[in-house]
Amino acid sequence: MTSTQTQRVLLAGGWQPAQASGTFQAENPATKTPLDEPYPISSWADCETALRAAEQAARQLRSTPPDTIAAFLRRYAERIEARTAELCETAHRETGYPVKPRLADVELPRTTAQLRQAADAARDGSWRLATIDTRSGIRSCYLPLGPICVFGPNNFPLAFGSISGGDFAAAIAAGNPVIAKANTSHPATTRIFAEEAQQAADESGLPSGTVQLIYRLSHADGERLVADPRVGATAYTGSRTAGLKLKAAADAAGTPIYLELSSVNPVVVLPGALAERADKIADEFTTSCLMGAGQFCTNPGLVLLLAGDTTERFIDGVNRRFGEAPAGVLLSKGVAGSLARSVGELAAAGAQVVTGGRPAEATGYRYANTLLRIGGREFLAQPHRLQTEAFGNASLLVVADDARQAADVLDALEGNLTGCVYSDTRGGDDPLYEQLVPHLRPRVGRLLNDKMPTGVAVSPAMNHGGPYPATGHPGFTAVGIPASLVRFAMLACYDNVRPHRLPPALADKNPNGRMWRLIDGAWTQADVVKS
Amino acid sequence: MTSTQTQRVLLAGGWQPAQASGTFQAENPATKTPLDEPYPISSWADCETALRAAEQAARQLRSTPPDTIAAFLRRYAERIEARTAELCETAHRETGYPVKPRLADVELPRTTAQLRQAADAARDGSWRLATIDTRSGIRSCYLPLGPICVFGPNNFPLAFGSISGGDFAAAIAAGNPVIAKANTSHPATTRIFAEEAQQAADESGLPSGTVQLIYRLSHADGERLVADPRVGATAYTGSRTAGLKLKAAADAAGTPIYLELSSVNPVVVLPGALAERADKIADEFTTSCLMGAGQFCTNPGLVLLLAGDTTERFIDGVNRRFGEAPAGVLLSKGVAGSLARSVGELAAAGAQVVTGGRPAEATGYRYANTLLRIGGREFLAQPHRLQTEAFGNASLLVVADDARQAADVLDALEGNLTGCVYSDTRGGDDPLYEQLVPHLRPRVGRLLNDKMPTGVAVSPAMNHGGPYPATGHPGFTAVGIPASLVRFAMLACYDNVRPHRLPPALADKNPNGRMWRLIDGAWTQADVVKS
Repeated sequence: MTSTQTQRVLLAGGWQPAQASGTFQAENPATKTPLDEPYPISSWADCETALRAAEQAARQLRSTPPDTIAAFLRRYAERIEARTAELCETAHRETGYPVKPRLADVELPRTTAQLRQAADAARDGSWRLATIDTRSGIRSCYLPLGPICVFGPNNFPLAFGSISGGDFAAAIAAGNPVIAKANTSHPATTRIFAEEAQQAADESGLPSGTVQLIYRLSHADGERLVADPRVGATAYTGSRTAGLKLKAAADAAGTPIYLELSSVNPVVVLPGALAERADKIADEFTTSCLMGAGQFCTNPGLVLLLAGDTTERFIDGVNRRFGEAPAGVLLSKGVAGSLARSVGELAAAGAQVVTGGRPAEATGYRYANTLLRIGGREFLAQPHRLQTEAFGNASLLVVADDARQAADVLDALEGNLTGCVYSDTRGGDDPLYEQLVPHLRPRVGRLLNDKMPTGVAVSPAMNHGGPYPATGHPGFTAVGIPASLVRFAMLACYDNVRPHRLPPALADKNPNGRMWRLIDGAWTQADVVKS
Repeated sequence: MTSTQTQRVLLAGGWQPAQASGTFQAENPATKTPLDEPYPISSWADCETALRAAEQAARQLRSTPPDTIAAFLRRYAERIEARTAELCETAHRETGYPVKPRLADVELPRTTAQLRQAADAARDGSWRLATIDTRSGIRSCYLPLGPICVFGPNNFPLAFGSISGGDFAAAIAAGNPVIAKANTSHPATTRIFAEEAQQAADESGLPSGTVQLIYRLSHADGERLVADPRVGATAYTGSRTAGLKLKAAADAAGTPIYLELSSVNPVVVLPGALAERADKIADEFTTSCLMGAGQFCTNPGLVLLLAGDTTERFIDGVNRRFGEAPAGVLLSKGVAGSLARSVGELAAAGAQVVTGGRPAEATGYRYANTLLRIGGREFLAQPHRLQTEAFGNASLLVVADDARQAADVLDALEGNLTGCVYSDTRGGDDPLYEQLVPHLRPRVGRLLNDKMPTGVAVSPAMNHGGPYPATGHPGFTAVGIPASLVRFAMLACYDNVRPHRLPPALADKNPNGRMWRLIDGAWTQADVVKS
């Protein structure tokens, strides 16, 4: 395929020319030069093809053994590893992220590890929360929901990619086909993944149409897609504006949509912690805030401090560090523009620019590392505006007069993915901790101690979620296996259903000897014992 | 309190005069005579009072021991039992349901059993799905979500009552305050419950404002209430029209709303089953369809049959039974009017009235037991219209020409709470079962064999839920403890949080020796073992 020919889309089991309404090109944000492959903007006809194929695949997947799905996920991970160099080089070109360590040493291994964990979860089946009540003859478990649309974000081209990331892995592991909508900032990276996914699907014998890829859609077609009655659910990670439009469309159709939207991820640093280890915390904060040019969903975008000398010294220290650190490349012109606008919005709302607050003078899309500050009283006068997410290498310091005002600031926070509290190690901050955390806990999905929020371990206990508007529902996580699979499943009950007609997960015999099931009130890996 | 004085509302821990915009009276549907107590239509001021008190109660409940909540639920069940006679007499007057067996022998014991099961779940805590990953230092569990609004239905004045039923019990057991909105057809029944709930709350030491009751609101205030940022979630059981308006309001605010809306609950009767036991099935169907005048969420409103002589004889048998059975009292003038309109809509869409189809000539609101029929082809021409729920003692028989057409009928079904399949006991229907059930399974929350859907056991394996528009989300159940509690909870993760700051559910030591927790991938009731 030459570079001037428009790329094909992956639909119904094969690569085919898009029914396109136009094309687009990605851009190398480190050089501001367009990348020369044209990608199609699909019209509704491509969505219709995808939906038909996905509907059929969903039907076939309901009787596909979990081992086949697991084999696909493992095979896919292997095929990704075989193209590591090309994937990382391509993602580097499209995102500006360094090949090492970010892409090759961190994000790609995370991607393949997630796929393998999802494979284990599919085989094991404990994610189904199979529940058996022998006395009443009622049994239930989670079953696949149907075609899942995945809209991937710009900031994790591999580990949250629409056809390679956590949502994809969870949707497939739960037994659903995926219609992936690429992020338009890294279409070539997504294409390579889709090539390997399709190959692995063929090799594993998955139904045709289990994995499909469209690069771009009009907003209207995107909204139509998530609201289509054939769609089981949608997973979206990205900007709040676009996400809420999709949510409105999905909600009106009664279709679940799982969103991961903006979050300022408050970090509370208590005075004892500053007295004890201000430099260490300034280092940790600077690293967390500026890493990857701050383009993390869990970037610490708001730091809450109590007024005082140690706080002023801490701010000076962070200011110095922000000034000394290089300004990273931002993902795109759009991200750079949005960051500048958001910082402008914060400043217009009264935040004082401590450092940065302007584009950086260097090649590519870059913005100076930016620190803003505002008093607690001023924050409380316009709390909504002052929670504008400045996605990128910027953070707002809120300096409260006292603990009472700090509690009010926490009460004024919207829903967030994370909230951190730093306190001294000897317990001196404990009374303050106990006073403030009840205000923070209900507003965040994950509460951290003495640790920045940017690491999101793929742990069964992780919650990468949180109250609205960080996500669309406070009960679900996008990261962490097996919990993330349940988003893409329906609760299916069998009442008095004859034994030979039960799905394997609900049969008397444990289907693999490993599946955890809640039998008569006790979790067990054993078979049902006949009484 | 005299009968002419407007009843008070229960707000902020006490009974107080409503800030009312008007009053209403209930009616005895068996006699069509108004019941003389006036009840207030609250204005927004009452909602505001309720929200403030609930917000404060929610804060206090977060640190209230589960044993206190459990003690309340048990005490409340005892207090209900002490007023059984008065409750059942009152509910009888307001709903027309017989005191025995329906109210006193079935619904009231179910109500108190649910409260006691909820008490056990609160104490036990296994509903929290506590997950501990010792290697990464990450722990998570479900925590209370905040004030829950409960809108109860007309058809279960006790067991689904807004301040006595399953949603109330689940919301409280999960640690949340409840703002109950009574169903306007049985305010006096609800008032008695609220009196006992408030007494039990005081006796148990629950925070003031944990249980609150408003009788009626304007539609606009109802929508404002569910969208208020202080509300954690809403549970609504009732008509589709009103439910979808509340859903739109809650969705726009990003607040979870759990709906239980209309459902026609398809019953498929296969030819072998009819050949084997047509009379028995006709008996079961007639009982299920006409019991309580058919006013069940899981009433069998659509029966799918395959054309043939046995089917015609079955229809004749049901016709005879419907003609012989007395027409029960309907819950209200509104229900009677809606049933007549729905039957009219089905007839206008081409369904033939086999029997009934007109008001019954007897005292009170009654409609003749009604059976309609239509061919599969005709059904498929207007599947949406022909799924109009005729809430009450009516059902539509769909006679398909063949299995292929029957599958198409199933594919055309909207989401339902239940789906039943009757087949012969010797396996002769098994090929047909295997052909049809894949079309039925994804459209229903609960699949039954050889059993009518009207029994909804309070089992941990129950799913009283299903795909939209039967409910608003296919992953949740409104009946069944502990699963129903999770609707009213948020997933809360603790990352690197110091041990003494963890909630009891996530501490190393199992808080009560009984709580099931997923520790390092294995469900256990043991403590965390230090390695």
